[in-house]
Amino acid sequence: MALASTETTATTIDFGPAAALSCRECGARYELGPSFACIECFGPLEIAYDFGAVSREQISAGPTNIWRYRSLLPVPADVADKPNMAPGWTKLVRADRLARELGIRSLHVKDDSGNPTHSFKDRVVAIAVEAARNFGFHTLSCSSTGNLAGAVTAAAARAGLDACVFIPADLEQAKIVMASVYGGKLVGIEGSYDEVNRFCSELIGDPLGDRWGFVNVNLRPYYAEGSKTLAYEIAEQLGWRLPDQIVIPVASGSQLTKIDKGFGELIKLGLVEEKPYRIFGAQAAGCSPVSTAYRAGRDVIQPVKPDTIAKSLAIGNPADGPYVLDIARRTGGAVEDVTDEEIVDAIRLLARTEGIFAETAGGVTVGVLRKLVAEGRLDPDAETVVLNTGDGLKTLDAVAGHARPTAVIRPSLDAFRAAVAG
Amino acid sequence: MALASTETTATTIDFGPAAALSCRECGARYELGPSFACIECFGPLEIAYDFGAVSREQISAGPTNIWRYRSLLPVPADVADKPNMAPGWTKLVRADRLARELGIRSLHVKDDSGNPTHSFKDRVVAIAVEAARNFGFHTLSCSSTGNLAGAVTAAAARAGLDACVFIPADLEQAKIVMASVYGGKLVGIEGSYDEVNRFCSELIGDPLGDRWGFVNVNLRPYYAEGSKTLAYEIAEQLGWRLPDQIVIPVASGSQLTKIDKGFGELIKLGLVEEKPYRIFGAQAAGCSPVSTAYRAGRDVIQPVKPDTIAKSLAIGNPADGPYVLDIARRTGGAVEDVTDEEIVDAIRLLARTEGIFAETAGGVTVGVLRKLVAEGRLDPDAETVVLNTGDGLKTLDAVAGHARPTAVIRPSLDAFRAAVAG
Repeated sequence: MALASTETTATTIDFGPAAALSCRECGARYELGPSFACIECFGPLEIAYDFGAVSREQISAGPTNIWRYRSLLPVPADVADKPNMAPGWTKLVRADRLARELGIRSLHVKDDSGNPTHSFKDRVVAIAVEAARNFGFHTLSCSSTGNLAGAVTAAAARAGLDACVFIPADLEQAKIVMASVYGGKLVGIEGSYDEVNRFCSELIGDPLGDRWGFVNVNLRPYYAEGSKTLAYEIAEQLGWRLPDQIVIPVASGSQLTKIDKGFGELIKLGLVEEKPYRIFGAQAAGCSPVSTAYRAGRDVIQPVKPDTIAKSLAIGNPADGPYVLDIARRTGGAVEDVTDEEIVDAIRLLARTEGIFAETAGGVTVGVLRKLVAEGRLDPDAETVVLNTGDGLKTLDAVAGHARPTAVIRPSLDAFRAAVAG
Repeated sequence: MALASTETTATTIDFGPAAALSCRECGARYELGPSFACIECFGPLEIAYDFGAVSREQISAGPTNIWRYRSLLPVPADVADKPNMAPGWTKLVRADRLARELGIRSLHVKDDSGNPTHSFKDRVVAIAVEAARNFGFHTLSCSSTGNLAGAVTAAAARAGLDACVFIPADLEQAKIVMASVYGGKLVGIEGSYDEVNRFCSELIGDPLGDRWGFVNVNLRPYYAEGSKTLAYEIAEQLGWRLPDQIVIPVASGSQLTKIDKGFGELIKLGLVEEKPYRIFGAQAAGCSPVSTAYRAGRDVIQPVKPDTIAKSLAIGNPADGPYVLDIARRTGGAVEDVTDEEIVDAIRLLARTEGIFAETAGGVTVGVLRKLVAEGRLDPDAETVVLNTGDGLKTLDAVAGHARPTAVIRPSLDAFRAAVAG
């Protein structure tokens, strides 16, 4: 099978409406291939499209997963029929109780913990799997802060591909178990995420990594497009309308830039009315290179050594940081950060008001939302969306100290009266 | 608000198409109320309906959650607009790779780990919350083996109700954290689930438990109906068709009996064609009172003291056990059990073939499916569905010994070559 797909690569490649790779910096265009950097200027490559006519009706008639937007993604028209994780169409939860506590009028939580491996990463990986198939790769790989590793190994299992993924060795147990249970190879690296990432770049140039698809390296232009589906879903779930304000976590920064791209495409295609929207980036204080640059009014990101419980956002040298700064400034948003203590408080706040148990990354966005409201930097009367991109079950330790039984008792009414109801 | 709802109870009670409570044993009928046992014969009460006309089109036009079936459930017509967890419409995953390994033709996994708190319990609790609102209860409660406690405390948080839930004190950490993070009271009981359950029955008769809705005791007739939505979804997702064979976990047995009820309703309402289907119950060998009775050809369930890693199925005295025996025998199915080792093997098998990380309960159903196929007791050519009712992240310990990094290395190609790719 591997042979056949290599031989027929030229004729079977099908990226749907994707037309080319184009450099985000200099605009140079390239054929669709497993490339990620411009050979002219080393800028990052992204997908350029020739969109056909796309209607709300056509989308709404699609499956209840990201493939309803297949005509806006670099995937073949029959993608929904292939074995993949079919992520997306997660809930946009109306958060009235949280809104009331924060003192804002209209708030929704886009809750991506409902994805198959319980983080938004299933979205990006699903697109990368199609690219890997197109290019005849046999092994799916990535550098990961944890969630991505689980998403990649699960997707590879389902697609019948090999997997070999790389993580910092000191991750949460839940993420380690999840990344290895699907049967691929999981390699712990003694070092930070940024060191894992550098290692993967080396591996890609080595014969060892031949015909490997690194979802967030050589497949990155395809992979990154998966985040656009968050924008599409939010708009469709609001009744084909953009929100006024949105709070998005910033790790590499890719997700935030792609949500902005997605909103822009919806406007251009006439699927939503044009209107201004403000994009806010959220970081953990213990890994805040982008918010630090934002506050200082700088365009350049100074890499940092992460030290935060929000490990899924612990990227000290974020590739798309400068674009995040651009977008926050252009849309009238901001980039802000919160301490680990504020993250834990925000996880608990979201849980007790809305019944949503978020990962630390969700504590970061809700914490930043709360901070921005308190400081009067977010309009309390405007329609607001906050993202939860992961699941509390993966970062139990963050709240374990606060989440214990009220009491442990013998099974008797007297014991209950004495310990709990007295 | 509590006052108002008490005063207006008589006029605002709205259970949609539900007409009465009726005794499963003697058929005696009662007004809809917070009762669960027949005063004539002590049999369990269940919901009797006056269904209006229900069409496939009407259902398909509904929301992508269990409320699309609101006209088949004891809930008001506007239930989707109220703050609740909106569970359901989880994936029915086509499992070709697993089917191939098992040697069967057509297999789907109904994957309920996609629910808001990652178990099927969100379905039953969502119905119970509506009943609690109808009866003016201020506190939501339950006895639980873990998953239910999380589902109840999350749903109470979102609905703005108090929660006080009871669990055996020795549960998995993930379930304890999840059940307490939403801010309700979590009480650990020194004893088995069956002792927790007995304690709750005492509490219900005590003034301490006044105006408490115990979802699986005094709200049980409403609560249990939530499991019917699994039957509805499976049929709709198969293209409005019943499967030939289905494997369902058995704890109290309620879920299995309600799936059978749901299939029956779909036939009666003309929503699917009538056809025979076989229902198989799955238990853990360490808590197998129903499969033991099945094998022995008995009608009576002998209670056991559970000892299994499948804690969510560890009910030693299953209330609906006799009905499970009836249904398995009537439909030509069976009740079977698997050892803890077979459970772990099955979790890993499902993960590496389909990218689905199941709770131990999912290991039980997949393990029993495998055993039934191997023993020739399940038709390999018939359309088969197996349920996964919970999430692997909640029972990490079951697989932690098998799910470790392949290697931990320095970030260098030499180290990688030596440890992994050599």
